[in-house]
Amino acid sequence: MSYVSVSASKSYTVEIAPDLLKDIGSRAASIHPAVKAAVISDSNVWPLYGQTVVESMEKAGFEVIHFVFNAGEASKNSNTYLEILNFLASSGMTRSDILIALGGGVVGDMTGFVAATYLRGIAFIQVPTTLLAMVDSSVGGKTAIDLPTGKNLVGAFYQPDLVLCDINTLSTLPESIFCDGCAEVIKYGILYDEKLFSHLEAYGLLFDRLSVVTRCVEWKRDVVAEDEFDRGSRQKLNLGHTIGHGIETSSRFSISHGQAVSTGIAIIARAAQSMGICSSNTCQRITNLLTRFKLPITTDYTASQLFNCALSDKKRAGSTVNLIIPKEIGNCIISPTAINQLETIIEAGL
Amino acid sequence: MSYVSVSASKSYTVEIAPDLLKDIGSRAASIHPAVKAAVISDSNVWPLYGQTVVESMEKAGFEVIHFVFNAGEASKNSNTYLEILNFLASSGMTRSDILIALGGGVVGDMTGFVAATYLRGIAFIQVPTTLLAMVDSSVGGKTAIDLPTGKNLVGAFYQPDLVLCDINTLSTLPESIFCDGCAEVIKYGILYDEKLFSHLEAYGLLFDRLSVVTRCVEWKRDVVAEDEFDRGSRQKLNLGHTIGHGIETSSRFSISHGQAVSTGIAIIARAAQSMGICSSNTCQRITNLLTRFKLPITTDYTASQLFNCALSDKKRAGSTVNLIIPKEIGNCIISPTAINQLETIIEAGL
Repeated sequence: MSYVSVSASKSYTVEIAPDLLKDIGSRAASIHPAVKAAVISDSNVWPLYGQTVVESMEKAGFEVIHFVFNAGEASKNSNTYLEILNFLASSGMTRSDILIALGGGVVGDMTGFVAATYLRGIAFIQVPTTLLAMVDSSVGGKTAIDLPTGKNLVGAFYQPDLVLCDINTLSTLPESIFCDGCAEVIKYGILYDEKLFSHLEAYGLLFDRLSVVTRCVEWKRDVVAEDEFDRGSRQKLNLGHTIGHGIETSSRFSISHGQAVSTGIAIIARAAQSMGICSSNTCQRITNLLTRFKLPITTDYTASQLFNCALSDKKRAGSTVNLIIPKEIGNCIISPTAINQLETIIEAGL
Repeated sequence: MSYVSVSASKSYTVEIAPDLLKDIGSRAASIHPAVKAAVISDSNVWPLYGQTVVESMEKAGFEVIHFVFNAGEASKNSNTYLEILNFLASSGMTRSDILIALGGGVVGDMTGFVAATYLRGIAFIQVPTTLLAMVDSSVGGKTAIDLPTGKNLVGAFYQPDLVLCDINTLSTLPESIFCDGCAEVIKYGILYDEKLFSHLEAYGLLFDRLSVVTRCVEWKRDVVAEDEFDRGSRQKLNLGHTIGHGIETSSRFSISHGQAVSTGIAIIARAAQSMGICSSNTCQRITNLLTRFKLPITTDYTASQLFNCALSDKKRAGSTVNLIIPKEIGNCIISPTAINQLETIIEAGL
């Protein structure tokens, strides 16, 4: 079992352990009075873990209601967001009550945005059940929904009150979903941690769950403590995402976030090599490791298509976009790039 | 001309003066680089002041776009909110750009919520053109939209970067809209300021615009500095609002906010008198002053109807609601009240 303490505009604990779900009630009661709790989940996760969570919460004295939506990125939109808000309002949820996000990144991002905005903010607990959500989206307070024009264009910075990562839930993930999360784990290795990267090279899919998830959450904690509102160093976490979001949007979300980020990382690594920013060996290690985790490193979209989608990237500031570019494993730079150079860079990395 | 400096999670200035609109460009440029600016306004205000604002902004180097929606509380909903978000996204607005809320409380609340959530937050300037928006909603960072179940149920705490109150705009307000704002001015008198209350008794509708608006903004500044997130003393600003929101919702917003708050204040004042919390003279002064400003002090709704709408009040915490009750002019108390007593209290004040 590990604990990671996050200090941001709100301080909270990320608990990482096997078999945590059955104790969620006592954990929730330790940080919040036992009031009404609304569990928000999706159609994949709820049948697996809904009952365990409800029973544990009720045992701890909470009155539990739940809202389940269709699984998938396509649900992360304003319609589902409003359905949840109206559900909470018609259920009489007050500012003293609490939300629980039970699921992957879509559930966590959207429930977080609901928590940030319902009655101008109520408490919520992140219970990530995918690797991606554990190492990335559930920690740090970025919440969002998508607009037709792009991913995560509407949201808020809003920290959870508690994050519970039950690593047993990772064993019920389909391999493709698990590997999606590995793209974000590999990203931490490239950004900050040669040792983590080497561990992944050595063990492949058999890497140690508890220690790797904990290591990634610790990196996320450091980043959030330094730059909660994404104005500087936190932007490094965007490695592979500017182009990745373009791939996701171009595919209308039929290509998963992890696959898109993997391809985005590979494209920027090859572009970095072609610009002489990283060595061919570094580029090769990156694309090899992605491939080892059954992640894609190429795309059929053209540079022009990806460029047009990248224009709606949130990190864009006027006529420049901040690209994150690998120099070596464990060391990346933030490179403010003129919009009109971006297409050439993508082209170089395809 | 007056300046009031607000210190909250963000620090900013409220400028109060005649004829400010024509200088909005230079004011905006003094706090933000001249980039792209989106003016959000409504169908009443835009024809009056839109051109002045656009010309001044363009003269200062901003590229200006605008979005105008139908005037009225009925527009303060999720549809308009999403229309504005999609407008900004499709116009390519980035995190470096800025929004301008040009109008009354509906424009300000909704534009503020858009600013709080578009790309997880961009800069915005409040340009209130009604008395109500100047003295209340434009300062302090409460942003919101309504849900079908109640007013302001979705929103965020998000401070503006600048507030410009051009008191000349008050002279184009229809009397009923001006008097709506007077309900909030009278509220400050009852809550904190016997001298302000006496000035209103002495001058009626001819009160001094500049000094009264400034005084109210100063009170708001003090309240926000002490309790930005509405967990304690800021709740006093809810005087008349718990019941007032019930009246607004019951009327499907055909009764204005100011009228509803006026009636809410009158009901709670009479209830306070009947409970022996305030004197009959205090109650009489309150209802007389409201009447002097052509504001209603009674309602046709029953206690039961108002009670049911008040149940969705945001200030409700589990089974209690914090009622704000006048003791004397300039002194009110926060009274945590069991939900099941609320209907009796409303009944006593009808």
